[in-house]
Amino acid sequence: MKINSARLQQHFEAMSLIGKIGETGTCRPAHSELEKQAFELAASWMTDAGMKTHIDNFGNLIGRLEGKNPLLPVFMMGSHLDSQPYGGRFDGVAGVLCAIEVVATLTENKVQPERPIEIISFADEEGWRFNKGLFGSRGILGKLEEGELQRTDKDGITRQQALKDFGCDVTQFPASTYPQGSIFCFLELHIEQGPILDLANKPIGVVSGISGPLWLTVKLKGMAGHTGSVPMAIRKDALVGTAEIIVAVNEIATQIPGAPTVGSVGTINVFPASRNIIPEEAEFTIDLRDIDLERRNRYEKQLRNRIEAIAAKHQLTYSISEDTKSDPRYCADWIKEIIHNQCESLNLSAPELMSGPFHDALALSYACDYGMIFVRCKDGISHNPLEYSSPEDLAVATNVMLGTVSEILKR
Amino acid sequence: MKINSARLQQHFEAMSLIGKIGETGTCRPAHSELEKQAFELAASWMTDAGMKTHIDNFGNLIGRLEGKNPLLPVFMMGSHLDSQPYGGRFDGVAGVLCAIEVVATLTENKVQPERPIEIISFADEEGWRFNKGLFGSRGILGKLEEGELQRTDKDGITRQQALKDFGCDVTQFPASTYPQGSIFCFLELHIEQGPILDLANKPIGVVSGISGPLWLTVKLKGMAGHTGSVPMAIRKDALVGTAEIIVAVNEIATQIPGAPTVGSVGTINVFPASRNIIPEEAEFTIDLRDIDLERRNRYEKQLRNRIEAIAAKHQLTYSISEDTKSDPRYCADWIKEIIHNQCESLNLSAPELMSGPFHDALALSYACDYGMIFVRCKDGISHNPLEYSSPEDLAVATNVMLGTVSEILKR
Repeated sequence: MKINSARLQQHFEAMSLIGKIGETGTCRPAHSELEKQAFELAASWMTDAGMKTHIDNFGNLIGRLEGKNPLLPVFMMGSHLDSQPYGGRFDGVAGVLCAIEVVATLTENKVQPERPIEIISFADEEGWRFNKGLFGSRGILGKLEEGELQRTDKDGITRQQALKDFGCDVTQFPASTYPQGSIFCFLELHIEQGPILDLANKPIGVVSGISGPLWLTVKLKGMAGHTGSVPMAIRKDALVGTAEIIVAVNEIATQIPGAPTVGSVGTINVFPASRNIIPEEAEFTIDLRDIDLERRNRYEKQLRNRIEAIAAKHQLTYSISEDTKSDPRYCADWIKEIIHNQCESLNLSAPELMSGPFHDALALSYACDYGMIFVRCKDGISHNPLEYSSPEDLAVATNVMLGTVSEILKR
Repeated sequence: MKINSARLQQHFEAMSLIGKIGETGTCRPAHSELEKQAFELAASWMTDAGMKTHIDNFGNLIGRLEGKNPLLPVFMMGSHLDSQPYGGRFDGVAGVLCAIEVVATLTENKVQPERPIEIISFADEEGWRFNKGLFGSRGILGKLEEGELQRTDKDGITRQQALKDFGCDVTQFPASTYPQGSIFCFLELHIEQGPILDLANKPIGVVSGISGPLWLTVKLKGMAGHTGSVPMAIRKDALVGTAEIIVAVNEIATQIPGAPTVGSVGTINVFPASRNIIPEEAEFTIDLRDIDLERRNRYEKQLRNRIEAIAAKHQLTYSISEDTKSDPRYCADWIKEIIHNQCESLNLSAPELMSGPFHDALALSYACDYGMIFVRCKDGISHNPLEYSSPEDLAVATNVMLGTVSEILKR
């Protein structure tokens, strides 16, 4: 049994047209009209593969291939079709399209599994629109947090309104959640989004786990004033404080050269944002990750101390909100073993590696065993229109996935 | 002859309702419907004071009290009624309202001067909407620069469109310019926007000159990537570079403790502005001022060197555009002397001081002699809703202005 690599490549090409920016970029915001178009296209392929499809109340697209025994816990695969605002063609897309190709191949080969298979394109994995991600995958597990629906995007639209506009009924979340024990296991294929496989010249990697991020939002408040007249010594400049904190984040994350720690500030807003007013307020996000949780916690403490000292130095008040704080979550040994065996049977040497980025699998890890297959991406570039994985690598990875699925279905 | 302080206070109160934010703040953008409302109100007071009014093609409101000899060079006063986005009730407003009060008092006392008097509320003094100020005052002197009409605000509206929407005919600029020699001199009353008078407990100051600003816009370009996976060592993070430059601006401006140098970054934008994408681009504005031009030039060189070094360190490309570069401009001795004499006749000791902020008078200084009267503002706070000058101080200053105008009209 082999997948149809030409069809798979056609699917990638067709999907890349929805929300296309520039030559090779994608912008498909969560819960948007563009994501709806992507869902309709993917749903048509799911239907061709013998699946029934619907969009649930979290804005997830779900395709289901019925099992001989519909009551057995479901074998779930998936990823997401929303993209970064300035993203590429493969992040998330690969996990949905390759899974559909696997099911299409099973169906063509008249395989009807004992247990149902579901493929989900999870809503808002990326998290930039409302500053909090993994929405759909946390949603189906009943893991949304208080106030999440009131978060607003940059245009002031709440998550609740965006979901309503998408056709979801937020009063019916319980109908879209999966009871404990109803998911047998979860498998996600994803591009690596880092340089390790490319540097090692390997098309496929077996994921050992996901090093979850710490996501903070910091607000500083000082005092506005005329840039031409307020003496430097009596200023309370929220942006100078912010700049020192950004430098501190960078210093903290690089204190051990070569360590896998990463620390970043991706967004910043100042108020009142006039070139001749001293910034009164600044708000920015911090993203801190490490495979080593103890070290990440130590660095978080250093960071909080630095923020306190910098705020005091510039007479700023501040608040820190914790948007996400995930522990590293490890893949199931039995699924990793199956993936390794499939790679060996295809004469592939597949290194095992940790994922710095998180994925929908991180949310699923709290509900069931999970495994992940990584596909090489050029120069490790991701979250960028230059993101690239070759059709050959994607085809090989999908064959590994097909073999893995076949083995899992025997369980 | 004395001004009517009750009427003056009523005018301040009425004007403060247009574009009011919070309890004491104002937001009246340049060329906006709110500025139009402010113009209509001020024009009604000008008319009451015996003046003829019109709005010119730069979006300036002009009131003219005809002279016995209409062909003599005009004696001009004025300031502006546009405000900062998060501004107060006095910046600019004082210069327009106090001048109207002076003319109203002259008219009530049946004074018809030999030469015409004009009061102008200049368009877009503040400069935040299109990142370049003194639009109206430079306009009437034929000092607009290439491309100015194509500058856009944050909503993408060009200056040209905004002027058109305001009712101006941009093809008729020459009809609204003042030929060389047609302005006799210029007098502007303004709140200090700094703490010197308040600390010295003096209601009035005589301005010695304006230390013009250097305004730069800096753009940095690096490389986007996933915050979770791109190793720190190979990053090209435009925001980390920006942060180091902001820290450098602050260091450069404070290298001589107590010096009057000020350096600020008031606005910043990053792209693509997602919490889990490494910023690929950042753009921000720098405002550097000093009474001592030689020192400002030296600091500018230091700053450009630092920007180059920081960009190189983070493998960023950069560009610097110079939006404004003004030399210090000194007030006419003869006007200062008249103001000092008027203060003495009212038993006021008025210190002489330099202005860090620029004003419309800076543009006029290239066309004629000019003088400025400063009014104390509480704690030196300006460009902030907390900005405050007392009715008593404003009345005293307007009486000084009345006496000054009377003396100037004898020339």
